[in-house]
Amino acid sequence: MVSTLINGIETSSIDARDRGFQYGDGLFETLRIRHGRPCLWSAHMARLAHGCERLGLPMPDVALLCDEVERLCCGGADGVLKIVLTRGSGGRGYRPPQDPAPTRLLSRFPTPDHPPENRMRGVVVRICDTRLGHSPVLAGLKHLNRLEQVLARAEWNDISIAEGLMQDIEGNVIEGTMSNLFVVQAGVLRTPELSRCGVAGVMRAQVMAVAGTLGIPVGEGRLGLRDLATADELFLSNSVIGIWPVRRLDSRDYVPGPLTARLAAAVDMCND
Amino acid sequence: MVSTLINGIETSSIDARDRGFQYGDGLFETLRIRHGRPCLWSAHMARLAHGCERLGLPMPDVALLCDEVERLCCGGADGVLKIVLTRGSGGRGYRPPQDPAPTRLLSRFPTPDHPPENRMRGVVVRICDTRLGHSPVLAGLKHLNRLEQVLARAEWNDISIAEGLMQDIEGNVIEGTMSNLFVVQAGVLRTPELSRCGVAGVMRAQVMAVAGTLGIPVGEGRLGLRDLATADELFLSNSVIGIWPVRRLDSRDYVPGPLTARLAAAVDMCND
Repeated sequence: MVSTLINGIETSSIDARDRGFQYGDGLFETLRIRHGRPCLWSAHMARLAHGCERLGLPMPDVALLCDEVERLCCGGADGVLKIVLTRGSGGRGYRPPQDPAPTRLLSRFPTPDHPPENRMRGVVVRICDTRLGHSPVLAGLKHLNRLEQVLARAEWNDISIAEGLMQDIEGNVIEGTMSNLFVVQAGVLRTPELSRCGVAGVMRAQVMAVAGTLGIPVGEGRLGLRDLATADELFLSNSVIGIWPVRRLDSRDYVPGPLTARLAAAVDMCND
Repeated sequence: MVSTLINGIETSSIDARDRGFQYGDGLFETLRIRHGRPCLWSAHMARLAHGCERLGLPMPDVALLCDEVERLCCGGADGVLKIVLTRGSGGRGYRPPQDPAPTRLLSRFPTPDHPPENRMRGVVVRICDTRLGHSPVLAGLKHLNRLEQVLARAEWNDISIAEGLMQDIEGNVIEGTMSNLFVVQAGVLRTPELSRCGVAGVMRAQVMAVAGTLGIPVGEGRLGLRDLATADELFLSNSVIGIWPVRRLDSRDYVPGPLTARLAAAVDMCND
């Protein structure tokens, strides 16, 4: 079965002049594939379109993307789909071409072999030393400039630690290296605001929407390490993992709580 | 003649899984080629080694790079050499492979056709709206995460404007999209400090060193738009252009000054 398509062609080679390679000039989406179908497709397409608008990239034809996803996933298996969209080759130095011919790379991967107990028992996380910089022009976007995440993820090798939380340069807790963070405090769900850094995850938005329908108060704001220490429940979210409760952060233990469980069940249902 | 070598092979195709393409996980150097030889080679290699150390990348064997530069530049012509070094393929998500096999891409380009009067008469520059974010962990590095520069350079199409200056999120003037900035105030040379953002250019260091040997006081510090407005001279530097005096910034005119001319001549001599 096909596992990689670049502009609709079965290849895994990129032109070295591609601006994705030269400058990280592009965006990506990571989707969960269930029974051969991408989950939360519309939400991922909406985020991609929003990112394209902010970066001045032409949004690909969604029907074309659908066809390509079909070619990659027609076997019906579960897995992960990554879509990378770049400004293609061309332009002069940093200057983008006036009429860009974007590169779209679709790749299918097996479902990551995370321990199944991550979902039920929860995961152990740590605080990273690497801080997220503040760049309002890029904040929220799932763009290809991901060196901060790479450096943060390089900080630990202990496989019992599933994720690292990143603070920004002012000490606000923002997100995990590959996930968003939620905190439950006295029945209220809170997640860091992302106006200066961080990735506005599709699953993050889904969790917030689901919380709304369940009548759980939810808000964005600034969270510090103290908020984490005093939280009743903590959990992580992304499109592939869904929701993982946090059962330990550094030396502090948490009990995967009822609100996390309700949200995880509701999100799973919507994700079907 | 060969124009592109990837890990020593004449090709221009990159594996789409390369972490340079996926995450911007790498560094680059842009060198001027004169009479078939790279200028300021040792300084570029030193900066590359420093970047490798900060990103945890193995530094390539410099003798090997020399051989490859020789293959690319043996025709003896002038031009530009770009070296891109990435962490190669592999790893799991953001997590780098424990034993990375870096990708090195060397490309030769013709000398850019900037108007020759840029060097003597000076250039017109503007202030960009796009701000440089603060990311201390990446500041100073010539890494592949360059979306801010792309967005800044996309702001103007007027070919009479040679460069755009970028402020950081606090309003400090930091650099041009592709050059460093120097200001002359009462006989003193100043350039923005780069601890929170910006690229520590090889030519910037060369200009500072040359100023030292000429007995010109030189310092790094914070510069605001007011410092530019009251400056006696302004100029830009990078490894390919050398020094360009600024003759106009938005609506303010500057006369390319004597200190800029002395430095430009001295830098040209060292660059031979």
